[in-house]
Amino acid sequence: MTHAVASKQDKFTFGLWTVGWRAQDPFGDATRAPVDPVESVHRLAELGAYGVTFHDDDLVPFGAGAGERDRIVARFKVALDETGMVVPMATTNLFTHPMFKEGALTANDRGVRRFALRKVMRNLDLAAELGATTYVFWGGREGSEVDVAKDVRTALDRYREGLDLLASYVVDNGYDIRFAVEPKPNEPRGDILLPTVGHALAFISSLDHADMVGVNPEVGHEQMSNLNFVHGIAQALWHGKLFHIDLNGQHGPKFDQDLVFGHGDLVSAFGLVDLLENGGATGAPAYDGPRHFDYKPHRTEDLDGVWRSAAANMRTYLMLRERARAFRADPEVQEALEACGAVDLASPTLADGESWKELRSDTSSFEEYDVEAAAARGYGVARLDQLMVEHLLGER
Amino acid sequence: MTHAVASKQDKFTFGLWTVGWRAQDPFGDATRAPVDPVESVHRLAELGAYGVTFHDDDLVPFGAGAGERDRIVARFKVALDETGMVVPMATTNLFTHPMFKEGALTANDRGVRRFALRKVMRNLDLAAELGATTYVFWGGREGSEVDVAKDVRTALDRYREGLDLLASYVVDNGYDIRFAVEPKPNEPRGDILLPTVGHALAFISSLDHADMVGVNPEVGHEQMSNLNFVHGIAQALWHGKLFHIDLNGQHGPKFDQDLVFGHGDLVSAFGLVDLLENGGATGAPAYDGPRHFDYKPHRTEDLDGVWRSAAANMRTYLMLRERARAFRADPEVQEALEACGAVDLASPTLADGESWKELRSDTSSFEEYDVEAAAARGYGVARLDQLMVEHLLGER
Amino acid sequence: MTHAVASKQDKFTFGLWTVGWRAQDPFGDATRAPVDPVESVHRLAELGAYGVTFHDDDLVPFGAGAGERDRIVARFKVALDETGMVVPMATTNLFTHPMFKEGALTANDRGVRRFALRKVMRNLDLAAELGATTYVFWGGREGSEVDVAKDVRTALDRYREGLDLLASYVVDNGYDIRFAVEPKPNEPRGDILLPTVGHALAFISSLDHADMVGVNPEVGHEQMSNLNFVHGIAQALWHGKLFHIDLNGQHGPKFDQDLVFGHGDLVSAFGLVDLLENGGATGAPAYDGPRHFDYKPHRTEDLDGVWRSAAANMRTYLMLRERARAFRADPEVQEALEACGAVDLASPTLADGESWKELRSDTSSFEEYDVEAAAARGYGVARLDQLMVEHLLGER
Amino acid sequence: MTHAVASKQDKFTFGLWTVGWRAQDPFGDATRAPVDPVESVHRLAELGAYGVTFHDDDLVPFGAGAGERDRIVARFKVALDETGMVVPMATTNLFTHPMFKEGALTANDRGVRRFALRKVMRNLDLAAELGATTYVFWGGREGSEVDVAKDVRTALDRYREGLDLLASYVVDNGYDIRFAVEPKPNEPRGDILLPTVGHALAFISSLDHADMVGVNPEVGHEQMSNLNFVHGIAQALWHGKLFHIDLNGQHGPKFDQDLVFGHGDLVSAFGLVDLLENGGATGAPAYDGPRHFDYKPHRTEDLDGVWRSAAANMRTYLMLRERARAFRADPEVQEALEACGAVDLASPTLADGESWKELRSDTSSFEEYDVEAAAARGYGVARLDQLMVEHLLGER
Repeated sequence: MTHAVASKQDKFTFGLWTVGWRAQDPFGDATRAPVDPVESVHRLAELGAYGVTFHDDDLVPFGAGAGERDRIVARFKVALDETGMVVPMATTNLFTHPMFKEGALTANDRGVRRFALRKVMRNLDLAAELGATTYVFWGGREGSEVDVAKDVRTALDRYREGLDLLASYVVDNGYDIRFAVEPKPNEPRGDILLPTVGHALAFISSLDHADMVGVNPEVGHEQMSNLNFVHGIAQALWHGKLFHIDLNGQHGPKFDQDLVFGHGDLVSAFGLVDLLENGGATGAPAYDGPRHFDYKPHRTEDLDGVWRSAAANMRTYLMLRERARAFRADPEVQEALEACGAVDLASPTLADGESWKELRSDTSSFEEYDVEAAAARGYGVARLDQLMVEHLLGER
Repeated sequence: MTHAVASKQDKFTFGLWTVGWRAQDPFGDATRAPVDPVESVHRLAELGAYGVTFHDDDLVPFGAGAGERDRIVARFKVALDETGMVVPMATTNLFTHPMFKEGALTANDRGVRRFALRKVMRNLDLAAELGATTYVFWGGREGSEVDVAKDVRTALDRYREGLDLLASYVVDNGYDIRFAVEPKPNEPRGDILLPTVGHALAFISSLDHADMVGVNPEVGHEQMSNLNFVHGIAQALWHGKLFHIDLNGQHGPKFDQDLVFGHGDLVSAFGLVDLLENGGATGAPAYDGPRHFDYKPHRTEDLDGVWRSAAANMRTYLMLRERARAFRADPEVQEALEACGAVDLASPTLADGESWKELRSDTSSFEEYDVEAAAARGYGVARLDQLMVEHLLGER
Repeated sequence: MTHAVASKQDKFTFGLWTVGWRAQDPFGDATRAPVDPVESVHRLAELGAYGVTFHDDDLVPFGAGAGERDRIVARFKVALDETGMVVPMATTNLFTHPMFKEGALTANDRGVRRFALRKVMRNLDLAAELGATTYVFWGGREGSEVDVAKDVRTALDRYREGLDLLASYVVDNGYDIRFAVEPKPNEPRGDILLPTVGHALAFISSLDHADMVGVNPEVGHEQMSNLNFVHGIAQALWHGKLFHIDLNGQHGPKFDQDLVFGHGDLVSAFGLVDLLENGGATGAPAYDGPRHFDYKPHRTEDLDGVWRSAAANMRTYLMLRERARAFRADPEVQEALEACGAVDLASPTLADGESWKELRSDTSSFEEYDVEAAAARGYGVARLDQLMVEHLLGER
Repeated sequence: MTHAVASKQDKFTFGLWTVGWRAQDPFGDATRAPVDPVESVHRLAELGAYGVTFHDDDLVPFGAGAGERDRIVARFKVALDETGMVVPMATTNLFTHPMFKEGALTANDRGVRRFALRKVMRNLDLAAELGATTYVFWGGREGSEVDVAKDVRTALDRYREGLDLLASYVVDNGYDIRFAVEPKPNEPRGDILLPTVGHALAFISSLDHADMVGVNPEVGHEQMSNLNFVHGIAQALWHGKLFHIDLNGQHGPKFDQDLVFGHGDLVSAFGLVDLLENGGATGAPAYDGPRHFDYKPHRTEDLDGVWRSAAANMRTYLMLRERARAFRADPEVQEALEACGAVDLASPTLADGESWKELRSDTSSFEEYDVEAAAARGYGVARLDQLMVEHLLGER
């Protein structure tokens, strides 16, 4: 058994909006009172967290004056100092206010687009001041419900224009900040631009400052499209673009559930922790940034349930980490991986220096290849599959 | 009413495997006899098609000797000559034979990978000989069912290695061929690599010959993940990467249905034709390649149903094209687009020469911006939405 | 073209909560001011509607005193009288107030369950007073997020207990009211009890007053599970249980979109109208109750968009009705239906008076049956399919 | 740790078609040689199984003569005798042969319907002879791709006619057999009749011999619609209709994967085993029939993988059973269940003898009810949720 307790080295972080969610939903009023961000910092620190993250409006209400803003920020910094908590990431709320109903960086209304850029710039200053090194862009309102009402190519032009401007703002101000685009397929819009990790990665490659922009994938967002989250993260890593990650749970294609990490698809959560911590079959740790929980405590819960669920995220992660390490250390697993050819996959298909010419002349590769033997080979995936499940269940 | 009849200018093409599908499915045996590819060429030509496409094994059985192969190809060319049909695209079957059960270009078994490359090279020669200018890669077996059994990053290394080699083969041989990667999220594998248009676009940006590689999206493949196909195509166009397109129909996340084009999500099909033909709101034709149908005639049908369904694809496309043109030409639609701001979206967010410095100094953009007025604006999407439906229904 | 204008004979009704939706969503604040129910009655009447429906709290705020309640109801009745609008259906809001967060009729807390029953009883009185003959039960909070936290069998006991009590209340008070259970798979709960038309029908068969309880299926709710709505309605009709229907649109498995009717899956909407109006292939009208729209105007819209979208629901229904009638009247369609065997399906499988004994002795049915001829038969579904699409597009 | 080994008391059964699946899929040829059913009986017996089940054509090829049939059956019986294996369930293949392409019991073609009935009758004789007490009906071909081409109400008439006839056949022949209808939403048909457990339960209530007909739900089939399988099973149990169950795994809405039990949604599998073995929160075993695995070994596997995957189903079930028992025995769990009100749910909402009249007079239930206190109550679901996950992971 684990007996593991979360500590700062584990780099667990939480959005202020997670434990602070008041549990209003499309069919129901809020069930919980607001939580003071300072209280959240203290409680999360006690539970072993490493830091917190925030949208501008989570900390400072929309429309607050400079004085109120300064007082709030000062008080928040005290809490950080008292607890040793850090703020590795910040982001902008470009979705709650009705002015953003038709979009923010890609709104049809140019005034809204300009306002949105200013709102981001203002919070970038605060993010830098608080030491954040990642700034997330979730374009929850960038999208449409009706295809003919929104020109997607033009919208992408505006999206790129906005991110290019903001990147130059960061660069010119000398901020040590990278951007992370967070994809989501839908909700609140019928269809959101950059719906998956793949679409975001492709978009990023078109940016002026592509090097400083990566992705911030969220477990549930990809699973809302029933995509394999582990595969998506692996591809993001392959592109060198996993700048941040949002951990939570989801039960497939339905509304965005934001469950506790591991409480949705547990087998996928195991695969994810194995990838992040062990690098999967390749064997090197794959990600060393914050393990950021972006979840919502059930609407049925009072504050006791809020803090319990916060702890549950960390504890589940630690249990999975332990099991993933044991899995990789198990000689039977190593043998099974060898047998299934997972190791051979690392050998280039071409021999050193071989081009298509040599390959075409190699009759052993085609003309004389034993097709039937290749067809008969068993890959032993069933064995590996069950070894994984047994490690996950703590049976080994 | 349309009275439109398909003609070669419409550039309608069909895979030999579509009308030739024998209707074997996971729970049932074939219900139709094989169709001779020569027969397909003639019948499709009579129906107004422009060309046909093929997997190597559609035309020449796997393992056929050189003599048989030559005879088949010669006879096929005669049919093309007699009918004036072209072959604008070809592809490789790297999924039917059991040897590919664990992958082809990304198989764990290096011998399988080498064989797969050779199989592609051989069919590239034939594709070039037949005048194809697009070569499609659908990696139906590149994937896994068990996350821990396949290292995705290493698999992507092999995928890239394979495509880089094949691109150099095309370049070195002077073939006038571009590659088009076809994404699919699953089926036949539990999860397939490059599951969406976005993932494929991102992957392509990493290739040695990225310029000659684009995507071949298929309506149903994106809709199997409940993604907005029109949005995906728009993003592919935005990246300059819509090299080819597979038209068909699908009823959301379930097995791959390959319905007749328009017989799935008809509203989306209208939006797609509007985008391809009219460029959407921006107003310029967006795609001038073949309109390629990749569908399967219902398993309940005999050959009469096969040819009727082939004709239905083209006829439905033409009806949608006519309605999309009328939609764009309707002054009320133009007024509604203006009103909803779809036109303003084309104006850059920044003024000419404006940088973040000027924007930050512009108090009208933030400090004095009338947030409440922006929040109160109605966008008139409901009006546009209904105009679209009425045009689609032939009511206007 | 249609030129049809909605009129009271079309029996179009709207929930007060539809045009009155203030467009607050999980990520955004309300974008529209409240609409006075009296205003809604007048505007909808002008647009050609037949009636309105309501949750208790749509009309009378939760917790209002008797005096306020009487004033509101009196004023509402005046509006009905002035416009000739009827109230054919009413329902209870058992989901907005935080007290219902863990359920209402199936809440773990017995006090909540008793309160919920009283809330329903009170509104049944008002429903009867306003002439409603259908009372809907949508158990939006009856469900759970965690399987082990809710005993479903016990919850169904409580659900049945509640509906049995309320049915006896209706019977004992002599109200001319039938109940209609509205299924939904999820949202706002992770999983809702009675998730589909089928589950609701099965549950109803267990009730004390099963005869007075039917279903109120909603287009989008079944499509959130990617189920075929037309099939579900047909089964409900087959059981004699289609007591009411909620028309709207949805783009497959995602959050509950409540689009305008026909603006989601248009082919399915055609099949639905054909079934409701023409009885499908059997040829008799299948449903004569209100055509009730339960949709939400896009959040991007102001009030102009609200009333336009209300009108769009009715107009789209009328256009589909016209096309469905033309489809059934088309001799080519009738011939195609004959050819595909849709007509033969109405012939019993057994001859008159035949039992299994005669069937077993009939060697023509098995021993001598021409299996290959049966396998070779083409059903002509492709032809019918395209005839349907062409009628839908207004091409015929 | 478990160390549990499957034994006959665990009542694990397998379809002959599971380990015998040759791994042909929609895009690929078979990868494995046929497995002799006699071999399957022996191997499964060695692994600890209790019995096997079969479609008629799994054992005796379609169209085999009486002599071949008798020889095959005799040989199969020897294997059963030698191993002590039983045959608790049988079923009919009404889907593989092309003659069933448009349906079987609901085919438009009356001759096909009659043939199908005879095919079932013949195999009912064999099922009875082999001691099967459950006979499953999976109507894989009963459905359609095009709504207007199939009258669902008439099809349900034929479905009922067929099952009524077959039930009378069983009764008249004195067979100790009950029927179990197996729902599935789609695949191989675009939409299948009786798509969920709910639809099947409702249909059954309309049958002449409703008492002898229940359901045979399959994990993956409900999960293909993203429905909660545990909820569906609980409702089936509530109706007294869980006559049989098919255990396997699935990754949400996509093609039918038939994974090893637990290798899809593991949290749901835990909830299921808890319900079947412990009765969930109510505490009594809920099901005592066979635990029947209806899965497919990965297509990548040779026979070693086949037998390993068969063993994996049983072993995973046993591990989950052990964890579910420990969960229910844990005092902290019991306390948490008490706290969340799961226990109170068993108390009727009405007092003994209370009718609506007494409830309406009880001012404590409504007029004086402390709504705010009810709204403030925390249900402690977060705590229970995490206790469940920790038991599942073997941490407690």
